[in-house]
Amino acid sequence: MKVYDWPTGPYPARVRIALAEKNLQSDVEFVPVNLWKGEHKTPTFLAKNYSGTLPVLELDDGIYLAECTAITVYLDALAGDSALTGRTPLEKGVVQMMTKRAEIEMLDAISIYFHHATPGLGSDVELYQNREWGLRQRDKALRGMHYFNAVLRKQSFIAGEVFSMADIAVIGGFIFADIVELPIPQECRALLSWFARMQERPSVREQLEIVAPTH
Amino acid sequence: MKVYDWPTGPYPARVRIALAEKNLQSDVEFVPVNLWKGEHKTPTFLAKNYSGTLPVLELDDGIYLAECTAITVYLDALAGDSALTGRTPLEKGVVQMMTKRAEIEMLDAISIYFHHATPGLGSDVELYQNREWGLRQRDKALRGMHYFNAVLRKQSFIAGEVFSMADIAVIGGFIFADIVELPIPQECRALLSWFARMQERPSVREQLEIVAPTH
Repeated sequence: MKVYDWPTGPYPARVRIALAEKNLQSDVEFVPVNLWKGEHKTPTFLAKNYSGTLPVLELDDGIYLAECTAITVYLDALAGDSALTGRTPLEKGVVQMMTKRAEIEMLDAISIYFHHATPGLGSDVELYQNREWGLRQRDKALRGMHYFNAVLRKQSFIAGEVFSMADIAVIGGFIFADIVELPIPQECRALLSWFARMQERPSVREQLEIVAPTH
Repeated sequence: MKVYDWPTGPYPARVRIALAEKNLQSDVEFVPVNLWKGEHKTPTFLAKNYSGTLPVLELDDGIYLAECTAITVYLDALAGDSALTGRTPLEKGVVQMMTKRAEIEMLDAISIYFHHATPGLGSDVELYQNREWGLRQRDKALRGMHYFNAVLRKQSFIAGEVFSMADIAVIGGFIFADIVELPIPQECRALLSWFARMQERPSVREQLEIVAPTH
């Protein structure tokens, strides 16, 4: 398998954490796609993923799988006991819901802020920006942090009492928040304490050292 | 189970089609939440779904599942043979990818156009609009239709050779396109022909009669 990847990208980090959790890293060749040069917007790359985003998993028979959730669902079904995406129907549903919520309310919102209300990947790549929309998404992400803090005051992980793909999505949010220098509010104690616990996992710690070596 | 629902909503239609495909309709009580009165943005409803969107599935033990994909994954795992979300790891991954792509590139894009560049649900509900963003999303949806047309020139269904959750997501896009009067380009023949085939399925035909009785 190949993973089209960029080492400091928050979304690629999600799949690298999933690969590490599943002990599949050694089965994968990582192919860098330079986001800062807009290599993910070239016709060659768009043929692999119409949406022009990283990461993309290329299977040995030439099939391309894009979208972090789709890749994680595939990897989780491929090897082991589906620990990342849920074992029962209810677990599967809740993990999917909380992963999507982590995207809408935090990770994707920070991404839109980055691409629309900051210099983003630079003027050669960011051909259109909507600053007002970007700033609203930043505020949405801050509200999202308070929401996940409230969730974590009642349970140990984002989707319940076990580590899952939903935790990885919020970790992606922390990685992107660090890049855009959007601090997690100090009053979100349960969220910050959860993130400290997440860093005890080798899969997470290793990725944080790559994306944010100062931490 | 209860489903918080609005009869003409494109997203609720996705879950109603999934319920019909799984023969689970008779197990569900539908509870209307009036979108035009903004009932999905009240504190009572936000406590059920932080994101303030329909549909939401309430399980008998009081758990709330939001997000169409999450609800469909739950229902599909609950009953029958997981026909809607894929049987093998690869099928599961491709269905997830194509469902997400249907959202990003068509359904969600039309939804943003509706809420931001048309009167949407009316000035009492649409408290903030970003018209420029809405118009760009309309154009994105039109490009998305051409993309799905290209997909359907090579295969029978959105995620391959079997009907899945990804087809349902694009059907949601057609339903929303009809509401906002955004015609599917006539040159998208494979896409239009696929939609005609979809309407032969009782689960789809029944919903289209509810959301767009003139069809």
